[in-house]
Amino acid sequence: MTDASVDYRSMWTELGMDLEGHDLLLAAIPKLYADAYLSQHDRPEGMAYFDFVMSEIHGLRIKELHDHRAAGGTVIGTFCVYVPEEIIRALGGVSVGLCAGAEWAYDQVEQVLPRNTCALIKSAMGFKMGRVCPYVESADLVIGETTCDGKKKAYELFGELAPLYVMELPQMKRPQDLELWRGELDRLVAKLEEVSGRSLTFEALQTATKEVNDKRRALQRLNAARAASPAPISGKDALLAVQVAFYDDTPRFTKMVDRIAEELEARVAAGRGVAPPDAPRVLVTGSPMSVPNWKVHDLVEKAGGVVVSEELCTGSRYYEKLVAEDATRVEGLLDGIAEKYLAINCACFTPNPGRIEDVLRLANEYKADGILSYALQFCAPYQIETTSVERAARDAGLPVLRVDTDYSMEDVGQLGTRVEAFLEMLRA
Amino acid sequence: MTDASVDYRSMWTELGMDLEGHDLLLAAIPKLYADAYLSQHDRPEGMAYFDFVMSEIHGLRIKELHDHRAAGGTVIGTFCVYVPEEIIRALGGVSVGLCAGAEWAYDQVEQVLPRNTCALIKSAMGFKMGRVCPYVESADLVIGETTCDGKKKAYELFGELAPLYVMELPQMKRPQDLELWRGELDRLVAKLEEVSGRSLTFEALQTATKEVNDKRRALQRLNAARAASPAPISGKDALLAVQVAFYDDTPRFTKMVDRIAEELEARVAAGRGVAPPDAPRVLVTGSPMSVPNWKVHDLVEKAGGVVVSEELCTGSRYYEKLVAEDATRVEGLLDGIAEKYLAINCACFTPNPGRIEDVLRLANEYKADGILSYALQFCAPYQIETTSVERAARDAGLPVLRVDTDYSMEDVGQLGTRVEAFLEMLRA
Repeated sequence: MTDASVDYRSMWTELGMDLEGHDLLLAAIPKLYADAYLSQHDRPEGMAYFDFVMSEIHGLRIKELHDHRAAGGTVIGTFCVYVPEEIIRALGGVSVGLCAGAEWAYDQVEQVLPRNTCALIKSAMGFKMGRVCPYVESADLVIGETTCDGKKKAYELFGELAPLYVMELPQMKRPQDLELWRGELDRLVAKLEEVSGRSLTFEALQTATKEVNDKRRALQRLNAARAASPAPISGKDALLAVQVAFYDDTPRFTKMVDRIAEELEARVAAGRGVAPPDAPRVLVTGSPMSVPNWKVHDLVEKAGGVVVSEELCTGSRYYEKLVAEDATRVEGLLDGIAEKYLAINCACFTPNPGRIEDVLRLANEYKADGILSYALQFCAPYQIETTSVERAARDAGLPVLRVDTDYSMEDVGQLGTRVEAFLEMLRA
Repeated sequence: MTDASVDYRSMWTELGMDLEGHDLLLAAIPKLYADAYLSQHDRPEGMAYFDFVMSEIHGLRIKELHDHRAAGGTVIGTFCVYVPEEIIRALGGVSVGLCAGAEWAYDQVEQVLPRNTCALIKSAMGFKMGRVCPYVESADLVIGETTCDGKKKAYELFGELAPLYVMELPQMKRPQDLELWRGELDRLVAKLEEVSGRSLTFEALQTATKEVNDKRRALQRLNAARAASPAPISGKDALLAVQVAFYDDTPRFTKMVDRIAEELEARVAAGRGVAPPDAPRVLVTGSPMSVPNWKVHDLVEKAGGVVVSEELCTGSRYYEKLVAEDATRVEGLLDGIAEKYLAINCACFTPNPGRIEDVLRLANEYKADGILSYALQFCAPYQIETTSVERAARDAGLPVLRVDTDYSMEDVGQLGTRVEAFLEMLRA
């Protein structure tokens, strides 16, 4: 996916990567991307930026991280929307989401993790064990969290392979949970101060908070345009924007997304869309989707539907909530960060009525004709919560298609048939 | 398993049970019990008590619970060793472990829970949906906990079928986690005061603490005898004792177990055992085993081995730790309860080095020749932690047999072959 120039190869070697395996990986992605993305008609021009980003995903961006570290900064790897980017950034760190969206080195992974572990976790472990993710190899620290049994326990093994720090996310959202979580932020600050050799200042945290909020505001703006009919951008492209938000340079990303949003607003004003006005509109909700996991969106949109919103960690859960910017002390900003992050509605919480409300609200705002409830196999939190999502959606008169899948392509034929039948039903 | 006398049937009807389904269930268990238990040779005489208990598991014991409620007491259902019996007891409650050890009504369960949910959870939900567990039907309140994703999310659905209260067990064991957990005890007290209409007093909590400690001391004593060679009691019988500890009358149970322990001590002094001195000695560790889940113990012991210890929730995790009895105020007793329960080493914690230490220590104390690492399929915490258990055991020179299974009998043939091969290796 990048020109395998000598420069990058020496960089990858320096990072301790498995060049041979990595070559195989890099050879596979461009075709995948072309099939899913470049085959689309009438894409917003601004998406050219993401085409470029994707072509340089293991190249130029890694070089930037390398230069950032050479200039005294740190690179902090994360796997989850609950790890506060604001704090990482305020301490001179670049936050990067780690590779976890494709099958890799499963033979090695299954030596240490059960086969019936979700694809996201197996993938993350495989990219590390196979040494083909330049992000984790660039990371000064990886920050884990206790969001699910699989990750919580897999981190214990991951921590043998990479420098790891685990935050405890509570499982409820009561005042005492917020207190525990607020304490976790203090401990994270201490850990990142140690790793970075810097001290957290009010100015730095305020600036970082504003910058990360701006990134989320840009994504909000881009996504707001999708409420229009016809949809001005494909779900696949909108999903990619959020996926890239996890590892791109923050101010640059904000600028590029704002540019796309502007373009989308012009399209909406002109009534121009990427799908016909009568294309069935689908809300996707469930487990996270990491690059290059575009499977479900691809199936829906190639079958003539259009995904209009994602109630996902790589979707609304990432960008909908903002951190309060008006605090006047570090502690106040951290309070705001604690509140914002704990307010995200992941299925790891019990109970989690906020997510059901989000799904219904988004379906309404984005005029969805139906809901695709997506779960990774063996992702117990989302798989079990699907029962509640289905009930609420049906009570609201919204048809639901339940998809439990992984990263393999074996079920694409069968899934495609189910998606087509679902879209037919939505059309009727 | 009980004489289906008219008296019990009217009691079951009053509880709202499905008599037809329940008849089928009751018809199945005596054969299962006879095959596993009554077929054993030279059992301790004291086990006759447990034969009686098992024959009256849905009869006389339920009648006792009925009478207890009629006299103003409460019945509190639990699924987990982290729910403090002392507090329930001090507020006039009888704590009962709920049915979760056999497949029941899976067709109904799989309408609301994913197929790939662990057998313990599917079973608990099935017994409730099928209305064949008189314990849950007798319960004034069921207390859940956030020990794993499966239970945490399944409780949300279970709570639609039964009065439910969920305690948040933290995921680490640091001072701040103990603080959160200590707060959970205060909230549990408030909830149980509300349900029982009583107020917690120091005297009642002190008495209950001593009584529950006595129960655990009796189990400690029974289990200590198993360190002898030849083993004076089968693993199956010792397992049953802990399983029954979850729902039997506490003082009566203590007395009967003490009586068995005394008998075992005499056997040890006389060098009398239930297995030959050269029978391979196996430590079983992993997921909990609820009545009538005796599958693994049965396979090991029918193949000529003997299980000498269980590092299980239905084993050492239940009885090894005691609550401090020397506090002089309610708060002090609650502090001791919080500390004791949080010290239990379940795989739901991260990290969980204490469990590895427990496994190695027990293997040493009980002179185990090998370890059977047992996990329910889809029980991510224990399945993933098995990697660490295996490593530590192998470093200590202890062979490990890994068994991932469920409650079906489909894999018994294949498992039996693996168990036999493992015992052969231990003999060599």
